[in-house]
Amino acid sequence: MSVRLDPQNSQQYADLIDKYDTWLFDCDGVLWKGDTLVDGAKEVLDILRKRGKNVLFVTNNATKSRRNYKKKFDVLGIQADVDEVFGSAYASAVYVSTIMKLPQDKKVFVVGMGGLEEELREEGVSFIGGTDPAFNTLTPPSERIVTDPSVAVVLVGLDMSINYYKLSVAMRYLHSNPEVAFLASNADSTYPSDKGLLPGAGAVLAPLRTVLGDARPPTIIGKPNRHMLDAIKAKHNFDSKRTIMVGDRLNTDIEFGQSGGLATLLVLTGIASEDDLTGPNRSSTIPDFVTPSIGDLRSAVQA
Amino acid sequence: MSVRLDPQNSQQYADLIDKYDTWLFDCDGVLWKGDTLVDGAKEVLDILRKRGKNVLFVTNNATKSRRNYKKKFDVLGIQADVDEVFGSAYASAVYVSTIMKLPQDKKVFVVGMGGLEEELREEGVSFIGGTDPAFNTLTPPSERIVTDPSVAVVLVGLDMSINYYKLSVAMRYLHSNPEVAFLASNADSTYPSDKGLLPGAGAVLAPLRTVLGDARPPTIIGKPNRHMLDAIKAKHNFDSKRTIMVGDRLNTDIEFGQSGGLATLLVLTGIASEDDLTGPNRSSTIPDFVTPSIGDLRSAVQA
Repeated sequence: MSVRLDPQNSQQYADLIDKYDTWLFDCDGVLWKGDTLVDGAKEVLDILRKRGKNVLFVTNNATKSRRNYKKKFDVLGIQADVDEVFGSAYASAVYVSTIMKLPQDKKVFVVGMGGLEEELREEGVSFIGGTDPAFNTLTPPSERIVTDPSVAVVLVGLDMSINYYKLSVAMRYLHSNPEVAFLASNADSTYPSDKGLLPGAGAVLAPLRTVLGDARPPTIIGKPNRHMLDAIKAKHNFDSKRTIMVGDRLNTDIEFGQSGGLATLLVLTGIASEDDLTGPNRSSTIPDFVTPSIGDLRSAVQA
Repeated sequence: MSVRLDPQNSQQYADLIDKYDTWLFDCDGVLWKGDTLVDGAKEVLDILRKRGKNVLFVTNNATKSRRNYKKKFDVLGIQADVDEVFGSAYASAVYVSTIMKLPQDKKVFVVGMGGLEEELREEGVSFIGGTDPAFNTLTPPSERIVTDPSVAVVLVGLDMSINYYKLSVAMRYLHSNPEVAFLASNADSTYPSDKGLLPGAGAVLAPLRTVLGDARPPTIIGKPNRHMLDAIKAKHNFDSKRTIMVGDRLNTDIEFGQSGGLATLLVLTGIASEDDLTGPNRSSTIPDFVTPSIGDLRSAVQA
């Protein structure tokens, strides 16, 4: 059973803040919705910082580098350091460089956008594919695809230039060599944008999953998987027992926190609704705490 | 247990031919491989025709119309009438026009190629999308997608111009209206081409399946599904009990025959191998008859 925090009971929020030293936040649906700040989100982050808490931002968005993603914080007036932002693009690059320890003479074939490329570059990982115009065409393969033997990883993220040629090349790398690693930044099926709901990284990944079958599943880096937490821990020290994950999705944020042994707080300003907690088709994932909005934590200062 | 036909035993083949009046053939892997005829395939078809058998060609290929697909027969010197060729593109068009009975004022949104469009046009079905340049771009949606309220079906086939914009539009049609039918010509994960193995219709379909989830599965027309047989039966009369399906794939051709109550003959000139029948990971699909090659049926004339 989740503890339901009551916005009228400021002591509950004060106790929650006391209990955890490190606060991991999902962003969209928690701190903002599209281009609009959630009421009180900025003040709550200020309260946490004033009380000496570590604040980290953990997002599955792999279209943007941390540097680019931070611009969103700047526009909305939220204080954040690039080092506090963990996107699945960055986590994927850290996974390849630090956890897989890809040799310097090996390369990644990228199905993804500029943000993923930027993070790979910053981690010193060589790559081909991605935004290279040679792989962004609506013309299917006109001859047998010639592969680069130095490619040891196929890494897939959300790619708004996805096309048959790029998919065919990625397929050829994975098909022709069982040693080539199959990685994905994240597997979110949809991507909420200001143009409405669009296909997500999981949709871009789906053709390759279909082609390769269940015998060759991708390693998925982003939430809810442990690799994302491993990548964060490769860069930051914190005590899991005194860490809480705040999110709006049960099957990514809350599962991510739970699989990493963190406490979890669900907010109802994004994807998850009361119905997902108590309705007839309720989720089997049960967060430790539930509050209507992150803004509710403001009341802690009155306790 | 399958009956293993023995190429040394001509009587077995003569009996098989006597037993079935209608012969449904898969093409690639059975009659030809890529651009090369399987040895004896042409002679066997001639024998069947001389003995007054109905011969039909049943392929999941939805990139070509029947008219275009027949050109392949012509090039290889195989006698075939357009009316004897059933591709999944044609079967999809017949399904929409004759089985769904789509009203004249409704349209199909096509994710597919010219062959699918040609068959829809021949069946008098209106459509948008497909090869229209407006939907074939590497630029993602720049504003909210405006849908055409007359679209009542999204039909997906192999599309070598697949792109994020077209997928986003298809997603919007399906997402915004639970009444819009979700159809796919076939779900073959790969497409064997003379440029090597490429992603198939199932791979092109995968992003939409991912986005829509298990609650909204597509209706798949092609083999192994019954809809393909229903479409053939809408155009041809035959007695299922005296009909045999000949194919090289257990999970499409043989399952298709079995689900329709037809006899089945597996040839080993294509995808399925001896290992699929007797190896440690053998299939649970057991054809009625197995012969190394369709060419073996030539021996029937000696019996």
